[in-house]
Amino acid sequence: MANYNIIPLNELIAQFERLPGIGKKTAQRLAYNILEQPPERAQQFAEALVNARKKIHFCKDCQGFTDMEKCAICSDNTRDRSVICVVAEPKDVMAFERTREFSGLYHVLHGVISPMDGIGPDSLRIKELMTRLSNEDIKEIIMATNPTVEGEATASYISRLVKPMGIKVTRLAYGIPVGSDLEYADEYTLARALEGRNEI
Amino acid sequence: MANYNIIPLNELIAQFERLPGIGKKTAQRLAYNILEQPPERAQQFAEALVNARKKIHFCKDCQGFTDMEKCAICSDNTRDRSVICVVAEPKDVMAFERTREFSGLYHVLHGVISPMDGIGPDSLRIKELMTRLSNEDIKEIIMATNPTVEGEATASYISRLVKPMGIKVTRLAYGIPVGSDLEYADEYTLARALEGRNEI
Repeated sequence: MANYNIIPLNELIAQFERLPGIGKKTAQRLAYNILEQPPERAQQFAEALVNARKKIHFCKDCQGFTDMEKCAICSDNTRDRSVICVVAEPKDVMAFERTREFSGLYHVLHGVISPMDGIGPDSLRIKELMTRLSNEDIKEIIMATNPTVEGEATASYISRLVKPMGIKVTRLAYGIPVGSDLEYADEYTLARALEGRNEI
Repeated sequence: MANYNIIPLNELIAQFERLPGIGKKTAQRLAYNILEQPPERAQQFAEALVNARKKIHFCKDCQGFTDMEKCAICSDNTRDRSVICVVAEPKDVMAFERTREFSGLYHVLHGVISPMDGIGPDSLRIKELMTRLSNEDIKEIIMATNPTVEGEATASYISRLVKPMGIKVTRLAYGIPVGSDLEYADEYTLARALEGRNEI
């Protein structure tokens, strides 16, 4: 049977399919949606893509995303400049900002140490963190990597580098998530929650 | 607390969020992915969007998508030009082509009659179908709209228009899906499967 492929459509489907978590079927649905909308929609989408990628780069201090030289958090003089919360990904900054409980600064590593994937300490923004610690008056760094094997390894690697500098290194508390049901908590989480119990 | 929004990033998230089935969280994840890729990726994606929307339009005969004047199916002289399969959406054409069992032509309505959404027969490509039926030697039209209330209403509306022209109108068979389990078949489907039973 003949091949009825429409090349520009296939190219658009392929672009959607390259996005994380988007499979073949979803990519097709999204591409068809673009074709069904006015041409201005595709044009605006295209401009937003190019514009975001062109204007946004890494903050020279915290390595998070910004469209300025320094990001808005690093430029904010009302924030506590003696504490740095170290996260793996730029989106983790947003998660902490949503809590409205942290007023210090951030540092984005852009990944975690993962020998299986060939990611060693040199692939991360650890050198930039060490420069900040040497040049600025930092009292504490909070290791806020994920509670996974790689996240733990990264936290303890950085902790070993930083402690000799006389800077306090802390780790996020482990425990039962707020609003969760004890019945469904795994034994490791529950053990850590017991271990870290507080007087009420 | 200060507002740390990065405007080009928010604009990109908003564009992803306008896609069907993409929520706030997924839109953020996709936008961050674009920022983490080389700039060429965003550029290629942007070009694919604009290119697809600019080059692809409706086939003057079947109203399906094509980047030529007539689509590849309508231009294919080896196909049976006496049968038209009438579908609601352009993506339905692909579904039938994948079966490799249909060698006739298609007609895309671009929707179904749905008074609740303000979609009457005039919003669909029914006029274009009637023109084809008048000008060409069509022996049968197969109504292949979805087995929903709107799909049925559309099929019977078109059937009433076409039958007086002496053209055979058929509807897709109802029945149990291949490979399914009878236990999970709903009573309407099972009733239709009984009704349409064939001698073996």
